[in-house]
Amino acid sequence: MKMHCSLGERSYDIVLERGCLLDISEYLDCNRRYFIISDTGVPKEIIMSIRTQLKDANVFLVAEGETSKCMETYQMCLKMMLQKKYTRNDCVIALGGGVVGDLAGFVASSYMRGIDFINIPTTTLAQIDSSIGGKVAIDMDGIKNCVGAFWQPKLVLIDPNVLKTLPRRHFYNGLVEALKAGLIGDETLFEIFEKEDYLDYLDEILQRSLEIKRNVVEADEKETGLRKILNFGHTIGHGIESAAHFHDYYHGECVGLGMLAILEDKDIKQRVKRVLEKMHCPVQHHLDPKEIYKYIANDKKADGKSITIVQVSKIGEALLIEKSIDELERNCHEENI
Amino acid sequence: MKMHCSLGERSYDIVLERGCLLDISEYLDCNRRYFIISDTGVPKEIIMSIRTQLKDANVFLVAEGETSKCMETYQMCLKMMLQKKYTRNDCVIALGGGVVGDLAGFVASSYMRGIDFINIPTTTLAQIDSSIGGKVAIDMDGIKNCVGAFWQPKLVLIDPNVLKTLPRRHFYNGLVEALKAGLIGDETLFEIFEKEDYLDYLDEILQRSLEIKRNVVEADEKETGLRKILNFGHTIGHGIESAAHFHDYYHGECVGLGMLAILEDKDIKQRVKRVLEKMHCPVQHHLDPKEIYKYIANDKKADGKSITIVQVSKIGEALLIEKSIDELERNCHEENI
Repeated sequence: MKMHCSLGERSYDIVLERGCLLDISEYLDCNRRYFIISDTGVPKEIIMSIRTQLKDANVFLVAEGETSKCMETYQMCLKMMLQKKYTRNDCVIALGGGVVGDLAGFVASSYMRGIDFINIPTTTLAQIDSSIGGKVAIDMDGIKNCVGAFWQPKLVLIDPNVLKTLPRRHFYNGLVEALKAGLIGDETLFEIFEKEDYLDYLDEILQRSLEIKRNVVEADEKETGLRKILNFGHTIGHGIESAAHFHDYYHGECVGLGMLAILEDKDIKQRVKRVLEKMHCPVQHHLDPKEIYKYIANDKKADGKSITIVQVSKIGEALLIEKSIDELERNCHEENI
Repeated sequence: MKMHCSLGERSYDIVLERGCLLDISEYLDCNRRYFIISDTGVPKEIIMSIRTQLKDANVFLVAEGETSKCMETYQMCLKMMLQKKYTRNDCVIALGGGVVGDLAGFVASSYMRGIDFINIPTTTLAQIDSSIGGKVAIDMDGIKNCVGAFWQPKLVLIDPNVLKTLPRRHFYNGLVEALKAGLIGDETLFEIFEKEDYLDYLDEILQRSLEIKRNVVEADEKETGLRKILNFGHTIGHGIESAAHFHDYYHGECVGLGMLAILEDKDIKQRVKRVLEKMHCPVQHHLDPKEIYKYIANDKKADGKSITIVQVSKIGEALLIEKSIDELERNCHEENI
């Protein structure tokens, strides 16, 4: 199936189709010049398959993991593109998870003041969430996504078949963003997760998550209002991720912990906890709350003293609440989760 | 006087007023938090005057000259902003010439995925040309402006009084962009330069140049068509600038040489040469044409084999012409100028 993300001259298609990567010529111009950014976690066969379907493409492989979302890797990509004489008419392809998508998107947004960008997400996390919406960035000095841009892709190609190759922990990690999507905007989606056989509904989970994300992005591309609801669980989640130096937990796992930390409705918190446990995600952390809090105070969503927080008090509905940053320290404590 | 640049939600005012920097509270909110990027060439009194009019501002001083438009300085700015806990509600001010404007604009475009940016140009070049239009960038591997963004300022404050402090060579260097503006869009402006007492018309020169630039930017913000006419003289000019390692010539001087190198109409070329000589700008270079050509082939306006060139065959009117890059090698030769 094909979804459309309507953003005026920045509109694009999202293709969600099992097997779509086997013949990409149906969706993109294979005769253009491409710069593929991928990572060591993506199976070689997938990279080679995409590479050989394109007439002229170089592959830049970065190390798997959040540490590649850094200034050094960003510069290396740009330098290689300059060496290989890429022009502003060429196109960057992200082939990998959220890290590669964020990095490649920022490279595309700034190379020659911005060139085309196609996203081919290969992880649950990226397929469900990060590949659409145009938020691209790298990290700096331990602060997540503090340097970046809003840069929409020209096309997103999602093939759920590639998820089979994903390590189990990686697979579940991404599903947390779908759980979040259900919590903020789709009760039915949340309830799917409560079924015993929820994994049989994977394609529906992907589709419903993408629809919520697409609708929110269309309504508020630059995150001046509504789009902030997508950050449910992310403020404390990012704090946990930073405090653990992007090491002990995956992004989705941190979002799961962040949702538990911020949820006030005890019943909803219990239901979320049960689902997270079923997905083998952590439901408690062992970090110093002060460390987490330190990073929250640096969050780019903070305006110095207060921060906009997303709260869910009814499943499927999100609220934006202005909170003082100080107040959030309490939420970082283990016992609150 | 106040001009308005209409770009939808990215619209802004351009204030052109002698003495406007003495009381900036008339134009901007002095109670916001500002990060001022300036350079060692800007008189200390100007920096201090702006700094003290603002309630909360840090100043980041970069070395004067093109070498500051680099990845290292860009990173240093971002790191200082992170350290000082700037948020996405704060604002970057560029206080200086084109280098500072390009650098600060790129910092603003990418810090926290983009924050507000105010440009206070202090050189002729920046007041006439680079401070409006939103093209921001840094250089990499000797290639000019190859990493950057389109990021419009929220306000441009132009005080011609500050030009008095400018070294003579710097002053004339900037006027070349006004001469260019006349050539591509305003015969009267060009003719002002042919008067003996043209410097008595400085305010009119500034205003007419800004109006041309503003009109072109409004018609084609992202340089997909018409805006390319602003690059008249710049393709070879950038090549010269790069081949001289941003050292022997100033930017405007290179544009002057670039216009002479590309002009085909002998009469116009002669008239431009006379004006450039009057402005004490070089009318010949002593560089290796092959070196210049090497950089032209890397120009981001090139699509691999051909490049869009601006030609002027009647003063006040510009034409876009597609040329093979190979053909341009001839234009790099001294004897052609």
